[in-house]
Amino acid sequence: MQPPKAKIVNSAPLASRDATRKLARSIIASRFEDLPEAVKHEAKRTLLNWVGCAIGGSGHESVSNAIAALLPFCGSGQASLLGRRERVDILHASLLNGISSHVFDFDDTHAHTAIHPAAPVVPAILALAEHRPISGRDFIDALVVGIETECRIGKAVTPSHYEAGWHITGTAGVFGSAAAAGKLLGLNERQMCWALALAAAQPVGLQEMFGSMSKSFHPGQAAQNGLTAGLLASKGFTSSEQALEARRGWFHVMSATTDYAALTDKSWEILNNSYKPFACGLVVHPVIDGCLQLRNAHQLTPDSIDRIDVDVNSRVMMLTAIKEPTSGLEGKFSVYHAAAVAIVEGAAGERQFSDEAVRAQATAELRRRVFPSVDSEIGKVQARVTITLKNAKRLVAFVEHAVGSVKKPLSDAAIEQKVFGLADGILPSDQIRHVIDLCGRADQLDDAGEIARRSAKA
Amino acid sequence: MQPPKAKIVNSAPLASRDATRKLARSIIASRFEDLPEAVKHEAKRTLLNWVGCAIGGSGHESVSNAIAALLPFCGSGQASLLGRRERVDILHASLLNGISSHVFDFDDTHAHTAIHPAAPVVPAILALAEHRPISGRDFIDALVVGIETECRIGKAVTPSHYEAGWHITGTAGVFGSAAAAGKLLGLNERQMCWALALAAAQPVGLQEMFGSMSKSFHPGQAAQNGLTAGLLASKGFTSSEQALEARRGWFHVMSATTDYAALTDKSWEILNNSYKPFACGLVVHPVIDGCLQLRNAHQLTPDSIDRIDVDVNSRVMMLTAIKEPTSGLEGKFSVYHAAAVAIVEGAAGERQFSDEAVRAQATAELRRRVFPSVDSEIGKVQARVTITLKNAKRLVAFVEHAVGSVKKPLSDAAIEQKVFGLADGILPSDQIRHVIDLCGRADQLDDAGEIARRSAKA
Repeated sequence: MQPPKAKIVNSAPLASRDATRKLARSIIASRFEDLPEAVKHEAKRTLLNWVGCAIGGSGHESVSNAIAALLPFCGSGQASLLGRRERVDILHASLLNGISSHVFDFDDTHAHTAIHPAAPVVPAILALAEHRPISGRDFIDALVVGIETECRIGKAVTPSHYEAGWHITGTAGVFGSAAAAGKLLGLNERQMCWALALAAAQPVGLQEMFGSMSKSFHPGQAAQNGLTAGLLASKGFTSSEQALEARRGWFHVMSATTDYAALTDKSWEILNNSYKPFACGLVVHPVIDGCLQLRNAHQLTPDSIDRIDVDVNSRVMMLTAIKEPTSGLEGKFSVYHAAAVAIVEGAAGERQFSDEAVRAQATAELRRRVFPSVDSEIGKVQARVTITLKNAKRLVAFVEHAVGSVKKPLSDAAIEQKVFGLADGILPSDQIRHVIDLCGRADQLDDAGEIARRSAKA
Repeated sequence: MQPPKAKIVNSAPLASRDATRKLARSIIASRFEDLPEAVKHEAKRTLLNWVGCAIGGSGHESVSNAIAALLPFCGSGQASLLGRRERVDILHASLLNGISSHVFDFDDTHAHTAIHPAAPVVPAILALAEHRPISGRDFIDALVVGIETECRIGKAVTPSHYEAGWHITGTAGVFGSAAAAGKLLGLNERQMCWALALAAAQPVGLQEMFGSMSKSFHPGQAAQNGLTAGLLASKGFTSSEQALEARRGWFHVMSATTDYAALTDKSWEILNNSYKPFACGLVVHPVIDGCLQLRNAHQLTPDSIDRIDVDVNSRVMMLTAIKEPTSGLEGKFSVYHAAAVAIVEGAAGERQFSDEAVRAQATAELRRRVFPSVDSEIGKVQARVTITLKNAKRLVAFVEHAVGSVKKPLSDAAIEQKVFGLADGILPSDQIRHVIDLCGRADQLDDAGEIARRSAKA
């Protein structure tokens, strides 16, 4: 748990001067050759994890419903939908692949900001890569630029912006998509300012929509909006050149405080990206980890348990307080379900957050014996799980960092295994292996669009 | 000038209960037969004025640039672009017709909220009317429903939301488009709640973008977003059912205060819609009116004038303080230009806000002798113009309500004349007359899509 940083309030004139222009300049200056090896490697892990999530979510009702609604109005044949057969225009491909990649809430997370970095960025540039030739090197560079842009802007407004109720993946995410797409479209400095401004004008998503299909719509629409912004700017569609820092610009309107230093510091935010072993919001992962640890160490069954007490950070009850979830999507926002299903099924993958799993009797029954309480001593990434057995014995697990967090990252092999599990049953095994291989050497590809085409149904 | 209303702060639990659902119910319940005659008549004035603006703006660089950027990705052939030859999918038609209708800042205004009501609503339902058969009666009903929805939501957050820096036409406008499109798509109550929530998740536009092409993008994108919201909801794409009133919903996130009573009061907001005689933001109209009055009464020429002092409401200097505009778009946000060009050219139509007019030497020269000052006694819709002649004589005009305001509305004939002027040179005269006739009897048409098709180039 990091101590909260001192924030610079909105009126800091010097730090903010030319913030948009400086950011535009740094986006344009980025070159694949200059990226550290660790950054390139993390970019490919991010890509692979995203591709797995997009294929895995492609059959979800959210995706089918969105396709049913929008297909009659799509341009034809330009870009693939991962895990599916339809081909659509690149703008709708951005939206629809964005939805399917986030619908399981199983995609990557930048924990400090709560941004899911890949979902607004990758679908936009992957679609673009099917429309014009883009090398693997340029593709990885754009991916990194996009993620750095959205995470830095997100960092600058953390925690005020999220606490106000915005779904930051859809609001900061638009900048990531605009920056990455703009980079591939070859925008000059002024055009890049316009693209960022057109992104600033199109934030997507409120936290109120969590638990509905709308949540995954937010990063998808952010991807489409950012790509639209880049395309418009490339054809001379003007906007502000101070969209971030201006008095009536994004920072002032969207956040009570702004830390301008976050925009320019020397860290690589992509190195703080993490990949989930559990198919729900990161906030509840420490609880699941603790439950699984105790279950595995003591061969627990639901019958043996009297009650499960979980001491958690206040964010857990802010975001996952649904007591009696009735659908898989609601289950992802229920710490009660997360703890119970981990004990009952010994796992917390996508299957454990299906409608069936949420409605299963044993889990529903145990859910009523889960008692979360907020403990101000418990940090954002921590949890304490106390299981009281029917024989009165008490078992305690304190989780300092959950598995899958930056401090305990998934191995490359574990990500590959996760992707295989997600794509299994949707694509043939040899095709999945080929997609995993393509992502692993994405920066060596002549044509990055290959990744999208190979991830669609033949 | 109305006194500011007492606002109910955000924590009002009773008034807010089920706000979204009640609104959805009232949208669904609306029937053409129940609309007062005055409302039907105003709806047709709104429609006609909008059609004229959309045709008039269709050749603007903003529209051409947007088309150049997006046409390669559009679906084909479904809907007309007013004043042009291209046909595109209904979603992009909403965007592009929305841009062209607002680019001159000559469209309608709901003065209390500063919403331009037609631009986010009409392009969405007009495009829809080209895709499925929609009668004129249903079309007018949907138009009214859309305008009531956006203006009521806008009223509920006035003045906080606008003062925070949002471009309210793009933020409240999405609700108008979603409501109107959702009405025509036959959504049930729950689906209408989802459509409003999907709209809430997609606000468009910050005031920082004023003076660039991005300003007209905002209502266009709002039209597209609202139509998308309606289409998604119609195919079961779920969202929140309390998107307006929830703790992390639209009202709380987007505004410091909310007046829930505005959502349900018995007035018709469309009766407060107004149509501009001058091609710029309403805020500067009293100044133009005063200058024109003095010019006409005293046959003034620029040479005879020493200085022009204008006493204005603070909003004028908040929104139109560009001292040396360099483009037509910037000229619309310059009280200096507005006053000067009214004296020099005796008019303030679209031609007076072209790049050429802004750069013309006589106007630029007189602009430097315009001295605005904020006077706290001057109401939002007032202005005092004092012209000092070189012979030291002083002429004063106090404008209580500018021509074109709700208190001094344009006549039907004046709107027709305005539309004719806007479309002249783009469409043949007999076609313009036919379009004006179609709008005048829009509620009697079997097929409302006819209005769009007849407004395109043959």
